[in-house]
Amino acid sequence: MSTPWHHRYAQRTQRMGSSMIRELLKLTERPDIISFAGGLPAPELFPVEAFEAASSRVLRQHGSKALQYSTTEGYLPLRELIVEKMGRYGIEASVDNVLITSGSQQALDLIGKLLINPGDLILTERPSYLGALQAWRAYQAEFSTVPIDDDGLRVDMLEEALCGGPKFMYVLPNFQNPGGVTLSYERRLALIDIADRYGVPIIEDDPYGELRFEGEHLPPLVVLDADKLNGRQYNFQNEPHSYFKGNVIYMSTFSKTLAPGLRLGWIVAPASVIQHCVMTKQGMDLHTSSFIQMVAYEVAKDGFLTEHVRQIRDVYRERRDIMLAAMSEHFPPGVRWTRPEGGLFLWVTLPDELDSTAVLEAAINHKVAFVPGATFYPDGNTRNSFRLNFSNAQPEQIQEGIARLGQVLHNVIEPMPV
Amino acid sequence: MSTPWHHRYAQRTQRMGSSMIRELLKLTERPDIISFAGGLPAPELFPVEAFEAASSRVLRQHGSKALQYSTTEGYLPLRELIVEKMGRYGIEASVDNVLITSGSQQALDLIGKLLINPGDLILTERPSYLGALQAWRAYQAEFSTVPIDDDGLRVDMLEEALCGGPKFMYVLPNFQNPGGVTLSYERRLALIDIADRYGVPIIEDDPYGELRFEGEHLPPLVVLDADKLNGRQYNFQNEPHSYFKGNVIYMSTFSKTLAPGLRLGWIVAPASVIQHCVMTKQGMDLHTSSFIQMVAYEVAKDGFLTEHVRQIRDVYRERRDIMLAAMSEHFPPGVRWTRPEGGLFLWVTLPDELDSTAVLEAAINHKVAFVPGATFYPDGNTRNSFRLNFSNAQPEQIQEGIARLGQVLHNVIEPMPV
Repeated sequence: MSTPWHHRYAQRTQRMGSSMIRELLKLTERPDIISFAGGLPAPELFPVEAFEAASSRVLRQHGSKALQYSTTEGYLPLRELIVEKMGRYGIEASVDNVLITSGSQQALDLIGKLLINPGDLILTERPSYLGALQAWRAYQAEFSTVPIDDDGLRVDMLEEALCGGPKFMYVLPNFQNPGGVTLSYERRLALIDIADRYGVPIIEDDPYGELRFEGEHLPPLVVLDADKLNGRQYNFQNEPHSYFKGNVIYMSTFSKTLAPGLRLGWIVAPASVIQHCVMTKQGMDLHTSSFIQMVAYEVAKDGFLTEHVRQIRDVYRERRDIMLAAMSEHFPPGVRWTRPEGGLFLWVTLPDELDSTAVLEAAINHKVAFVPGATFYPDGNTRNSFRLNFSNAQPEQIQEGIARLGQVLHNVIEPMPV
Repeated sequence: MSTPWHHRYAQRTQRMGSSMIRELLKLTERPDIISFAGGLPAPELFPVEAFEAASSRVLRQHGSKALQYSTTEGYLPLRELIVEKMGRYGIEASVDNVLITSGSQQALDLIGKLLINPGDLILTERPSYLGALQAWRAYQAEFSTVPIDDDGLRVDMLEEALCGGPKFMYVLPNFQNPGGVTLSYERRLALIDIADRYGVPIIEDDPYGELRFEGEHLPPLVVLDADKLNGRQYNFQNEPHSYFKGNVIYMSTFSKTLAPGLRLGWIVAPASVIQHCVMTKQGMDLHTSSFIQMVAYEVAKDGFLTEHVRQIRDVYRERRDIMLAAMSEHFPPGVRWTRPEGGLFLWVTLPDELDSTAVLEAAINHKVAFVPGATFYPDGNTRNSFRLNFSNAQPEQIQEGIARLGQVLHNVIEPMPV
């Protein structure tokens, strides 16, 4: 018998990227390991009782409608809630600008399916979100990258990269995953200018924007883009949603504010783009679970989510502070890290010579885990950095885990000639 | 200003196929229309109270775990339940052979993403399931087709089509959507033989197999394929799940037995194929909602689903009988239809000269709706047929709707010269 037919497809899934996230999520399940690896929210903050009450209310009020097929666009009251929520961040949208997705991972997949042809170049930050790289590798995208620093994307290096002719740019402006850094206001303006000049659309991924626990909120790129369009005095007759003629597709999620196990995210875009997205999503899963959407709405409504997000911010601020203080205490000289003003992650840079994957092996022996930085580089070539999550572990675990990690880093750094 | 960048993508979503399903689902919402168009289960059978109790139990027993990220493969107890359920149909699987998907539409999308390169030929039944055509058009598949008759796929015409070199065959053996016909036992054996000879894998889509309300259950293709492999005495050392070395990927769903609004389906395949599927799904939505999977398990377990399916069969049998009797009474000579032994649909064939899309316009004026047959043909060229759903409407609605439709058909057929 010849090689089984399905062996031929191994190469394709390899191209989709390693199963690094999955393997790491498995690691985090080992109870003896203090894991800063996953991107998990703090589960003790999940409003479990509110979900129980909401599930009952949904089934009593809506009965079989909560369990029947529904429209691809998503549950209307949930889209209205998102519109109201977006409005608080200056994003003027209507329900026609909003599509519910099965988590923001589906939004990434959907955008890839709609926009990417094999061999297309996608411009990302360096490092960037692993899930986006994985989603788009499946469409045979190639990546070109621009580095980040403490003020986010190095916009001054953008034009050179744009000359490669990318299909779109992918940017996480707030508390970037994995870097933890935030794109400054000046760079946001410059980025919008350049994107408009080159006619290259921006995918603005904002899963953490609401989780700012320090400093001033900065306007989303989608808002600045719309301001720019308005400033040019385009003709907005018959265009009630003028904000959505622009160059930016915005996306976010309930995963970090309500619960990731729901798998609920959304895309905000010009209505015509949403129509294409709806047709694309229809072929992907028909629609996101009606029951889940109704339950999420029932939990989030009447200001509950807004209040709940305040609580999350307080807890995550405390955990970040504990982690930063522990790092200052335990990490050896020569190690640098970012100081995020929100979100779930910070980024550690080791001396150039070190490979964080090797450090991870040592760390696991010391019962502590993180994600090696190479995973977040499309070319995998930068190896001396890693990501730490500060949202999931308890304060005392953070202190203990960082102390262990400090010991590991002392072991690998101190023997080196200075 | 030049054309907005996103206008360039209109062509791509057009290639994905029309939004026919969506437009039709919208039609069904007009309360004055008796719709046989959608593929909706009977909502009054949804176990709403069981879902309420299950949601509470899940949140009380599992707490935040029900709301946290989980593994891509799916909730283990649900996969075990599926294994047990598959076993009753002769499919010997282990949990390593099962992947939970966000409805079987996602399984179709996933299979397309894994297997289809632009221009690949996919062999389908003629007519075939619209959702599959839509999912695979997005990957730029081309279709070659083999007609069905009352015994399902015309296997005698298969070899000619296989000479075109299709990537895989897509077959719905039980109560096919839209035809309502079932592939006979003899043809199943012949199909497996030919598939094996040509080395062309089969995607066996079986959403309705459990809903047989008449006649004998027939073995799934995946079982016959495994029997054939076993008969050849392959070396099964170190291969505990010998059934899954074969040529068939099997897929099914909870949409027609539990509730479609959950968006829960599954793929059964060789473990190595499932591993590729898992990596693919990871980039698509990370995983299907943990909460939904737990709730579905909690409802389905301890034999509840098995008992519930018996009830569905009884109701659908009655509705089919009422529809068939009404058709015999009201439809004019020259109209033929299939007599399904299960499932949700039957298929009506008009005299060759008639176009069912034109008939639909007349039907809507008479406040009754169906899906024109052309939708289900990849080339759209066969126009004298349409699909009727008998699961969703109440008995009295079925009688009234078929009477109205009979009137419409008399109007269009009688004026024609005989």
